[in-house]
Amino acid sequence: MSRFWSDTVRGLTPYVPGEQPRIEGLVKLNTNECPYAPSEHVVAAIAAQGGEALRLYPDPQSTLLRETLASYHGVTQDQVFVGNGSDEVLAHVFMGLLRHPLPLLHPDISYSFYPVYAKLYGITTREIPLNATFEIEVQDYLNAGPNGGIIFPNPNAPTGVALPRAEVQRLLDGNRDSVVVVDEAYVDFGADSVAPLIAQHPNLLVIRTFSKSRALAGLRVGYALGHPALIEALVRVKDSFNSYPLDRLAQAGAQASVEDESWFRLTCDRIMATRNRLSLALQQRGFEVLPSAANFVFARHPGHRGAHVAAALRQHKVLVRHFSQPARIADFLRISIGTEAQTDTLLAALDVVLNPT
Amino acid sequence: MSRFWSDTVRGLTPYVPGEQPRIEGLVKLNTNECPYAPSEHVVAAIAAQGGEALRLYPDPQSTLLRETLASYHGVTQDQVFVGNGSDEVLAHVFMGLLRHPLPLLHPDISYSFYPVYAKLYGITTREIPLNATFEIEVQDYLNAGPNGGIIFPNPNAPTGVALPRAEVQRLLDGNRDSVVVVDEAYVDFGADSVAPLIAQHPNLLVIRTFSKSRALAGLRVGYALGHPALIEALVRVKDSFNSYPLDRLAQAGAQASVEDESWFRLTCDRIMATRNRLSLALQQRGFEVLPSAANFVFARHPGHRGAHVAAALRQHKVLVRHFSQPARIADFLRISIGTEAQTDTLLAALDVVLNPT
Repeated sequence: MSRFWSDTVRGLTPYVPGEQPRIEGLVKLNTNECPYAPSEHVVAAIAAQGGEALRLYPDPQSTLLRETLASYHGVTQDQVFVGNGSDEVLAHVFMGLLRHPLPLLHPDISYSFYPVYAKLYGITTREIPLNATFEIEVQDYLNAGPNGGIIFPNPNAPTGVALPRAEVQRLLDGNRDSVVVVDEAYVDFGADSVAPLIAQHPNLLVIRTFSKSRALAGLRVGYALGHPALIEALVRVKDSFNSYPLDRLAQAGAQASVEDESWFRLTCDRIMATRNRLSLALQQRGFEVLPSAANFVFARHPGHRGAHVAAALRQHKVLVRHFSQPARIADFLRISIGTEAQTDTLLAALDVVLNPT
Repeated sequence: MSRFWSDTVRGLTPYVPGEQPRIEGLVKLNTNECPYAPSEHVVAAIAAQGGEALRLYPDPQSTLLRETLASYHGVTQDQVFVGNGSDEVLAHVFMGLLRHPLPLLHPDISYSFYPVYAKLYGITTREIPLNATFEIEVQDYLNAGPNGGIIFPNPNAPTGVALPRAEVQRLLDGNRDSVVVVDEAYVDFGADSVAPLIAQHPNLLVIRTFSKSRALAGLRVGYALGHPALIEALVRVKDSFNSYPLDRLAQAGAQASVEDESWFRLTCDRIMATRNRLSLALQQRGFEVLPSAANFVFARHPGHRGAHVAAALRQHKVLVRHFSQPARIADFLRISIGTEAQTDTLLAALDVVLNPT
């Protein structure tokens, strides 16, 4: 604490990202990264930009990348906003579209960065509990009274459970006076995207990231899709914050990734296949596994404390994510989907941890 | 305008960056980029990170880069904060260290992003006029009464005029109750850095960028040096905004740049030599040229309107920057230092523009 800090800084509770340890031979299943290398087209595009061009500022509007994304999603350029990872996009969304006198609604078990943004921008929030089977109940949001916005991940994190498109549609039909933000960070692993609904719903904003299904967590690119008026709000915030959020390499690499659909489909399919195998194997070992539409599973064992299993796996050089709060999920582990070989290592380690000799 | 916008968004006046046109054969002297390619070490470091590693999140603390910068400046790691360009660093500085009830002081002619940040975060500002020779007058700041912070570029932009270190020292001695931010984006071209003063002044924050003297505008890296308590404020804001602001390529490339001191010295020396030649050549053509310690010159011709000269140069495919506001600088042109050949082209174009046949 220092007398030079602003009141805002004094009141912050910063987000704590998953560990990024530098340990040789670690099986890292704690931050939902893709276990496979990104498309070769990405690597080539970065190499092409990585020389003399770096002396020049990037395009502040990321025009080529936005054109590519617009074409991919069948929307127009002014319906696309890009940022330095979906975390930066979300920050601008909170500042520009969710900062209202009425409370922002979000699930009680959800991406833990949401309440952090809310505190940064002085936004009142109200948590809507997931139901007993850890699902988002749309009716609870519709019953909650007037709000300044609604935000949730779909599939939800860290549960992995997806809300069907028809349910999001029902929410949108019943909530027309505030922005509904659907954070689709994990949507490419089997859930229904609501991106096709933006044409009918001027208050729907969809958030995407290149960090999971495109294996580019290290490149920091995310984007938003929505009505041009919503996108304009984000552009205004961005141009009052940092005109050039995406460097030349990130713009070129992300564009190349979108252009390589076959890599994308193959990679998502592999991860979904491994997820289904892992879910079954965990159930066979006595775990309760929530139905996942993400690149991770959320599971607990009735006979073992979550914190204990996570610590024991770490002894075996397998890193998974454990959340001690809220209490309702304290015995769950969030396990990212790795390669087939990493999955074998995880299962072997679990067999030792669950059945110590 | 949309009913979904927050009040903040409604009130913004976004920054307008210099043009980044895609015109073949353009002599681009409008955004103070380096005319020379970055160090080969940077290119190699990026290539080494541009493959499979991209699937993993970057180090959220940018530890290796901060270690390298700390060693370079003879400070400790906890005195270094890095961000996605110095613009992002500045945004966090405004939020974390300059958002106070008392007004923020800055020069009337200065980096035009400062009032934009102030508006974004609801900070009251007070402009302190440059003196008649376009210099910062320290005494005017000391006479201005209590303030919530002071910020100025040194050398100043767009004037290029530097404040001697002793004058900054005098300001710091007389202003101990608020943060003094010295934005040293252009300091490597001949001005005195006040980075050595941070040990004695817990309220001094120095801002640097890789965009100018390191030829990495396209990579988006900037940093701040200051007392650990000031740096901690920035970390708290960053971790409430975006945990991973620097991608893997930016971290690796920036680190390699700092490690190549010979490229750095050679490049700064070349640019200063060309600047001195250009200043003289402009004076010979009747221009008044402010004494520049930056990688640009700020000059006006008594016989020609600034807007007219800028437009005419554009016809010759030479792009320089012209600011129509404030009125006091409306006849100046800000001309970035290019290569020797670009300087020849600029001068030849000027000869035609100033003496139409």
